[in-house]
Amino acid sequence: MNTSNFFSFIALKQFIENALVSQGIPLADAMLISKLMAEADLQGSDGHGIIRLPQYIKRIRAGGINKHPKIRVVHERAAMAVVDGDNGMGHLVVSRAVDLAIEKAKEAGVAWVNTRYSNHAGPASLYSRRALEHNMLALYFAVGNANHLPPWGGMDMLLSTNPISAAIPTIDEPSVVLDMATTVAAYGKVKAKAKRGELMPAGWMIDREGKPLLDPTKAKDGFLLPIGEHKGYGLALIVGLLAGTLGGAAMGRDVVDFNADHVTTTNTGQAICVIDLAAFGDPEKFKHDVDKLICDIKNSEKLPGVDRIWLPGEQSHEKRNRYMAEGIPVAIGLVNELNALATEIGIDNLTQIANAHDHIK
Amino acid sequence: MNTSNFFSFIALKQFIENALVSQGIPLADAMLISKLMAEADLQGSDGHGIIRLPQYIKRIRAGGINKHPKIRVVHERAAMAVVDGDNGMGHLVVSRAVDLAIEKAKEAGVAWVNTRYSNHAGPASLYSRRALEHNMLALYFAVGNANHLPPWGGMDMLLSTNPISAAIPTIDEPSVVLDMATTVAAYGKVKAKAKRGELMPAGWMIDREGKPLLDPTKAKDGFLLPIGEHKGYGLALIVGLLAGTLGGAAMGRDVVDFNADHVTTTNTGQAICVIDLAAFGDPEKFKHDVDKLICDIKNSEKLPGVDRIWLPGEQSHEKRNRYMAEGIPVAIGLVNELNALATEIGIDNLTQIANAHDHIK
Repeated sequence: MNTSNFFSFIALKQFIENALVSQGIPLADAMLISKLMAEADLQGSDGHGIIRLPQYIKRIRAGGINKHPKIRVVHERAAMAVVDGDNGMGHLVVSRAVDLAIEKAKEAGVAWVNTRYSNHAGPASLYSRRALEHNMLALYFAVGNANHLPPWGGMDMLLSTNPISAAIPTIDEPSVVLDMATTVAAYGKVKAKAKRGELMPAGWMIDREGKPLLDPTKAKDGFLLPIGEHKGYGLALIVGLLAGTLGGAAMGRDVVDFNADHVTTTNTGQAICVIDLAAFGDPEKFKHDVDKLICDIKNSEKLPGVDRIWLPGEQSHEKRNRYMAEGIPVAIGLVNELNALATEIGIDNLTQIANAHDHIK
Repeated sequence: MNTSNFFSFIALKQFIENALVSQGIPLADAMLISKLMAEADLQGSDGHGIIRLPQYIKRIRAGGINKHPKIRVVHERAAMAVVDGDNGMGHLVVSRAVDLAIEKAKEAGVAWVNTRYSNHAGPASLYSRRALEHNMLALYFAVGNANHLPPWGGMDMLLSTNPISAAIPTIDEPSVVLDMATTVAAYGKVKAKAKRGELMPAGWMIDREGKPLLDPTKAKDGFLLPIGEHKGYGLALIVGLLAGTLGGAAMGRDVVDFNADHVTTTNTGQAICVIDLAAFGDPEKFKHDVDKLICDIKNSEKLPGVDRIWLPGEQSHEKRNRYMAEGIPVAIGLVNELNALATEIGIDNLTQIANAHDHIK
């Protein structure tokens, strides 16, 4: 059985906020982090939302997160900055970086901000999307928080799934929002297959002989595969250099596996590049051109058996609308885990919060 | 038989320069274009070097290129610009864009420059690499000059192989230089398979039923496949929006197939993003970190049967050194084609130029 309970955005957010506050995260910070985490679930990025709360709490309790970080700019020019997150929660550090990039792009036309001493911050598209409301577009790169990818031809996992996100504004159509790991499958999808007792398709992972690995319970004996073979390896490497090395954050052997180690400072790095459309001409014309392209794509001829051509971000867009109306599905197993956590840290459980907040059952 | 003649860099460059000058391209422009085209061959990007000369000459003669373009900046802020190429040769337009980006990055830390009314400019890495000598890194995006890629699930070719390049400086190791199409195979590789009478591997192309297309002579009845399925489609789309739409250049249905049409203005767009390492800290530390990562990757454990782990750009680096010493191989068929072109336009043929210049036979 693969059933879920449904919770409102506000209930998930409140639960996360309470959990963080109970661990000594200041209220304003907890409000921002919980909003971003609940937004992840709302857009269907359920591998990066409330599912991460137990792990975050474990790290906070183990002393692996600075609850009162002094987030500060350590390098700065007109179109760039490096933000040192002082080992605070990644959501806070990246939010600061994005805000700064938007501010700088307003003047310089383009701005690029790196983070260092940041932490896991959830799905990449949460941050690229922030530019949209400012008539800006954004690119976002991050170093993943555990190395699961060897260089092409190798079996030493020196690289992560290093994601790329891009957010492009529109007028009538949903924004174009790409959010992709540079591996064929993100590691969370492998874990999900294992939980459901399913085999993986060939092409997701290989074993130490280089042969397809299909059994997700044996994932520890194999490696993720990059998209496009050597090309995805190249992309993962470049993303890591841009998001990690450039800002003085961890990359390669320095990356801490935050699933296994709850104490060591991860020195996670992210990079955001924001582009102000107004600098390049009339933003309305740009957005109109994007709308037209989207229509051309959606209305274009389909392969036999294909019902619909999707744009990047369109499925998340539909989930956001549906989940806002009908509630966000949370797997029963996860609800139980979260409620056990609530008992452990002495806060109301998710069902209690939902009863207080939600009309959705 | 797949034999080649070998020519020096200087002979190829001189031949191209003479050909361009014979068609009324001003000498200074012809010198720059020919240098970049010969550099493409020198680094093994032989689908984008002298092989393109007959096509360029055809376009120039047909009036599809402005021989005396007024290349100018139409939008500008501290960290960005849009360069209008006035339908000049792409090499000139992109060179101007890169020079401007480097100049702006020195001040602003980061700069992003788009082109519009540019043309095909050769391999992406020619331009990203330009940043390296300035202790900068660069990203480069381009809209391909013919649409061969449908959106994922479709068969209307609205997208091109839209390449991505990145160039990252080092100290002791060769620079990391990624230069990749967002399709599994570039269209030039399909043409090369057809010329050699070989079949394509499954995964390069599909037919109109969505089945693997293996016969490269039937390429016109099929479509290229993006890397990582929907992910590569997303990347090709984003690259096109960044390199085309953002700067007011062609994208989607507006892209002119420059293989079939030698007259219509292509309005090709490219984008270059240059990052000054000095803005982010000590450039020597950055480059040292990259060197260390490269060593970790090269010395890491290999899969059974793998001799060597390559870094992006390392094969081009080795070709550059070897071809500079031993000469650049040019297929006999292409030599004959170029010599026929020389006769047609009344310049010395490649063999005559080589005899005058080269000690390499």
